[in-house]
Amino acid sequence: MPAKTIRRLAPAFALAVLTVSNVSVAADPEEMIEYRQGAMEVTKYHFSTIADMLKGKIEYDPAAVEKHAAVVQMMSTLVKDEFPEGTDALAGETNALMEIWDQPDAFADKVAEFEDTSEELLAAAKSGDKGRVASAVKDVGSSCKACHDDFRREE
Amino acid sequence: MPAKTIRRLAPAFALAVLTVSNVSVAADPEEMIEYRQGAMEVTKYHFSTIADMLKGKIEYDPAAVEKHAAVVQMMSTLVKDEFPEGTDALAGETNALMEIWDQPDAFADKVAEFEDTSEELLAAAKSGDKGRVASAVKDVGSSCKACHDDFRREE
Repeated sequence: MPAKTIRRLAPAFALAVLTVSNVSVAADPEEMIEYRQGAMEVTKYHFSTIADMLKGKIEYDPAAVEKHAAVVQMMSTLVKDEFPEGTDALAGETNALMEIWDQPDAFADKVAEFEDTSEELLAAAKSGDKGRVASAVKDVGSSCKACHDDFRREE
Repeated sequence: MPAKTIRRLAPAFALAVLTVSNVSVAADPEEMIEYRQGAMEVTKYHFSTIADMLKGKIEYDPAAVEKHAAVVQMMSTLVKDEFPEGTDALAGETNALMEIWDQPDAFADKVAEFEDTSEELLAAAKSGDKGRVASAVKDVGSSCKACHDDFRREE
């Protein structure tokens, strides 16, 4: 097949793959963007609440930590589906950089790191070991920063 | 105790109760409002994706339905903490009506209904019974509408 034909077909293949792996792709890119910005807010709130407890800004409550960690962990599993093809059309109007779609493997690695560290945060929260929670919070925070450094426009 | 003194002390009691039940209250009402609006977006996206599958707008995928239902169920458990005292200060700038804070018991009933119907939706999704999922989606939708009718400003 000539390279030109392959290039012409590539978007169709990409779409086919997406249809299989992301059955939940929203029809409307703007809705998808609103959703993923909401998801970021939810993640930020629950994660920063645990961080605030560790800093003593609010009372440390192991049961609440576990609840917040469970939300962060669940939210982490959703990120990989939050940036489907088509939602980059409005990338200029959001803080999502085109690198997300141009470097999908590098992006997937960062997202996987967020999933892994969030899973450890939940395990740490369930263990009731405050030191382990503190360590896990640091690792989740690092994974947030690593991804934002590469894939989010500086505000 | 004279009624006047009770009235003067009431906010202090309310705050004390809040401190116990909502350890996770955000310091900044505006942040809390951004969070809860994000939480609504997340809930709406995952719930409407299941609804779209039932409508045939996207392919019905039982595994995806279970994943989306798990998010809706978790989000439903968070609503009761999303409207703490203090976040009504900006109520005029959001669609949240003052009735949320003026009729806390009625509001709590609607929120509990959302939790219950979401739990049934997750159970239905796990059962793999599409008819049961359809029925549960209808009930969750009704609970959304019932709460929005009474406590959200019409857009």
